[in-house]
This record gives sequence, C-alpha cells and structure tokens, in this order.
Amino acid sequence: MKKILAFDVGGTSIKCALYDAHGALLEKWQIKTDKKDCGMRIFKDIAASIRRKLPQLDQIQGIGIGVPGPVTGTFVETAVNLGWKKNDVAKALQDALGEAIPVFVENDADVAAYGEFMAHKKSLASMALLTLGTGIGGGVILDKTIHRGANGVGGEFGHFKMAETGNRCNCGNTGCLETFASATAVVHETMRKLKSGTPSTLSLDNINAKIIFEAAQAGDDLALAMVDKAAYYLGRAIGLINTALDLELVLIGGGLSDAGDFFIDKIRKHYRENTFHVVKALPIERAVLGNDAGIHGCMEVVRNHG
Amino acid sequence: MKKILAFDVGGTSIKCALYDAHGALLEKWQIKTDKKDCGMRIFKDIAASIRRKLPQLDQIQGIGIGVPGPVTGTFVETAVNLGWKKNDVAKALQDALGEAIPVFVENDADVAAYGEFMAHKKSLASMALLTLGTGIGGGVILDKTIHRGANGVGGEFGHFKMAETGNRCNCGNTGCLETFASATAVVHETMRKLKSGTPSTLSLDNINAKIIFEAAQAGDDLALAMVDKAAYYLGRAIGLINTALDLELVLIGGGLSDAGDFFIDKIRKHYRENTFHVVKALPIERAVLGNDAGIHGCMEVVRNHG
Repeated sequence: MKKILAFDVGGTSIKCALYDAHGALLEKWQIKTDKKDCGMRIFKDIAASIRRKLPQLDQIQGIGIGVPGPVTGTFVETAVNLGWKKNDVAKALQDALGEAIPVFVENDADVAAYGEFMAHKKSLASMALLTLGTGIGGGVILDKTIHRGANGVGGEFGHFKMAETGNRCNCGNTGCLETFASATAVVHETMRKLKSGTPSTLSLDNINAKIIFEAAQAGDDLALAMVDKAAYYLGRAIGLINTALDLELVLIGGGLSDAGDFFIDKIRKHYRENTFHVVKALPIERAVLGNDAGIHGCMEVVRNHG
Repeated sequence: MKKILAFDVGGTSIKCALYDAHGALLEKWQIKTDKKDCGMRIFKDIAASIRRKLPQLDQIQGIGIGVPGPVTGTFVETAVNLGWKKNDVAKALQDALGEAIPVFVENDADVAAYGEFMAHKKSLASMALLTLGTGIGGGVILDKTIHRGANGVGGEFGHFKMAETGNRCNCGNTGCLETFASATAVVHETMRKLKSGTPSTLSLDNINAKIIFEAAQAGDDLALAMVDKAAYYLGRAIGLINTALDLELVLIGGGLSDAGDFFIDKIRKHYRENTFHVVKALPIERAVLGNDAGIHGCMEVVRNHG
C-alpha cells in the first residue's frame, strides 16, 4: 500500500506525518524551520526528512503541505513567517526531491479546517473553524471542499472589524475580533483591569490565558467578565459568518478551546442572543484534533485530491 | 428553438418573462400576487399566464421561479409574504400546468445575485450582491453557482449585527446593518435629526431616500452625514463579507444604488479604511439589471441547470 506524507509548516517548526493510503497515522515527527536563504532550506530539509523515512520514493501516493500564507494553486505569493516570496511550493519540493511526486499545497488555517471537517463524526457539506490562540485564524469548508478565496485568503475571522474603535490590531486596523477574543487580548485586557485596581484573585505576577480561565471557572468576577467579553465577540462573529453563509457547523479550536464547554456554552449563548433567528440553530462545537488538525487535513487533501 | 420562462414572485406582484434558449428576452409582463388560499392561487395564476403566452407547453425548455423565502431543492418551508407553508413549488406548478416541465426554484435574493453575476461583463467565479431598499437583501455566488446555504438561507447581510446596540430591527435584534443603511433607516435617522432641530435644507413635509441623496449631492450637511453613515456601515459590512470569503466582486443594487458613484465611492472609501489589508483590492460596483435581476437570474438558472 502506498503512503501519504503531510507537512504543516510553521515559523518555528514543521509538523511532519506519515499515513497509509487509508489515512491511518503511522508516524509523527517534527523538524526545525530553517528560515535562512529566504526560507528555501525548508524544501531541502523536508526532502531529506522524506528520504530518511521512505527511501523508496515510489511508495509515496502524494504529499500535502500546509503553509502560513495565501496559496493559489501551488503558488505562494508571500509567507512572511518563512521568508518565502513568489514560491511554487510544489515545484520547489519536487526539485529538492528530484522526483515529480504529486504535491498539494494549502493555507495552514484552511487545511486545519479541512482536517477537522473530515474528522467530524457526522458527514457534512459545510463548516467553519475558528482557531483561538495568540491570534484568531479560520477556515471555511463549503460543498465538502476548502473555500480558498480569489486570492488564497478568506476565513480571516480574526480581522473581522467588530466595533468602530478599539485597540490597534497587528494588521493595522482597530476593532478586529482578534483584539477582543484572542488569548493575547484576554490576557492584555485582564492585566489592564488588574493594573487599574479591579479586585480579583488574579495577580499580575503570574498570569496567562489558562490561569484566567481557571479563575473564571472558580468564580473570580474579573476573570468571568473577561471570558464573557471574549465569548460575546466570538458569538457575534460566528453570527456574522452564519448570517452570510448558513453553515451546518462551526468548530472552535486553538488554545482557548481547552476550556471546553465552560467557554463554548458562553459563545453559544451570545451567538443565539445576537444572531438572525433563521440561522440560530447552528451547532457550535469544540474542535477535536488540536495541533494535529493541519497534518490530518494535509493527508485528507492528498486522499481526496483537494 | 425552445423557450425559457422566468417568474420572480413578490408579495404584491409577480414579474414574468419569456426568453429564447440563448437567453434573449422576448417579452416581459406582470401579474398580481393573489395571496388567498394560503398563496396557492399563485400557481394557477402562473400556469394560466404560461398557457396564454405559450399554449404549446412542449416549447418550454424550463421554468425558473424566484421566491421570497428559504428554498431547499424545490421545497419552501415558509414564505411569510405569500402565505406559503411546506410547499413543493416545482410540484405545485407542474400540477397546475398538468405537465412535468422542469421547474427550478431559488430564493429571490439568490437568483437576483445570480442574474447580476451572469450579466457581468467579466467572467468571474465569485461575487456577492447587496440590495439596498426598504430592507437589505443579498446573495452569494461561489464557484460560479448560487451559495444556497444549509437551510436555503445565507447572504442575509441586512441582519449582520454591526454594533452592540441600536434601533430595533424587524427581525427582533438590534444593531442590524438594515437599521443603519437601508433606505428606511436613512429616512428615519434623517427625520429624527430634523425633529431634533439639526439645520438642513431638508423638510419633514417632503422627505424620502431620493430627496435625501439629492440634498447630499447638493451639499446639505445633514444629508451628507446621513449618506456617509450608511456608506460607513455598508463599507464595514462588505469588509466582513470579504474577510470571510475573499471574493472577486461585490455589487450594490436596489433603490439606493441609483445614487451611483456618489454613494458607491463613499462605500468604497469606508471599505478600504476598515478592511483587512490583504483583501482590500476588491472591486465594488453598481449592479446593472435593476428590477430585472430576478427574472434574468431565473432564466440563467434554467439555462445552466442551476
């Protein structure tokens, strides 16, 4: 049986995985992301890693790669975190391998959404994934395929402008969802409130998103207010997504989703309270694959030819 | 050559059209919407109209119908404006005709978007239409087809919740785009300002959206502020749509689009100022078909089998 290789390329490491042709995970490993030479060493490193795991390249059915940047076909115009510019990722990897093995290239957030979509217990046609971490990423699945967008973008829910004003976002705008509901935003806003003297069991000496969510579950008023504020903006944002798209499912992934139903129930409540009644019944669930969503999606893209 | 029939069913009248198989318009007419008998007379009236225009039913290639409600397949769960409940529209019309002619059923806003999409001078794959009238409707085209949504909804941009609070919308929520940027909203807000004594060339005795837009073009400060406020919310809403979907084009239709570039330039400006930079280049243009978008879309759905 042939094998499928999956690579989820991030700014610090590349998650790698080997699957059989049925999609069963055989092995998982990581390599360091070497950004020298405008990120071109990444291809040599992936190729070397492939040759170590599978010296007989004709055993490979295909290779799926998720990359942090907009993808059109197999082409990446720019991936800031890797140093890539105008890069045909499939060709570069085939050149590094010296073999014309089929290579499928996808945006990392899109392929994570596809991974979660394919791993979901129900057979659906449409879904969106919101990944809540340092920032907020996302991907959209429509008609059982990745919605790639005209410029390989789309699903950039973190940059939904939710309010007229607000803190400055990394993107340059103000009022972005990311500035209200990412892990970073929750920590910053909580610190600001602590500094201004809001009473809380939390301490500025020892604070992160996990600690804030635990304090909220233990009943700390400030922590609860912070978690609820994030949930409110997420509920409204999912309302916008679904008022536009009328999906079958929205999944919540990323670090903040570790808080589980304690957090997701709040998101569901704000979604229901703020969304057009005809699309209110949308199920909002927790994503299940964690950090493996990307490699799983890469594998499924190869299995299903995108 | 066979003929195509198109019917855009509204709450007060049904726009009807006859096209040849190449999509050339042969004739256009209207019939009154008779909502008695839970709206079931509509089918008899359409069937009678068809028999008058084309007594030989075997000349008909297909019939396209746009209806004001969510559509799944050929089924309409409910269309409040017509009195329909749990209605297989294709079957009802075929029964009324006594012939199993192919009938394609679509939501009216979706089919208007599809009409504009097919009439656009460039060959595109993706587009959204916002129709600005009494309310705000919309439709989304992806991969050259209507995005129908899981429940036959979607594209309900008028019910995007744009702000935490605001005037009550017909849907029951507050802060809906419709309450900021529909013709109704612009008129209401202007009247409120006039009543509170804001200086203006406008008068409470003679006011509607057209008059307000004309006053804005003539330089009236209040009218300008009102038009700009609507454009701001529309720009932000289109920003949300495109941050999620990365489209090739957004069109503005409906009564307010009659103001042309005077209005659409303001929408473009607010779009650019409030949207994630990677999707900023989106073209925003005026729709071209006016009230014929629906029948044109119905015809194209028949020609292209949906």
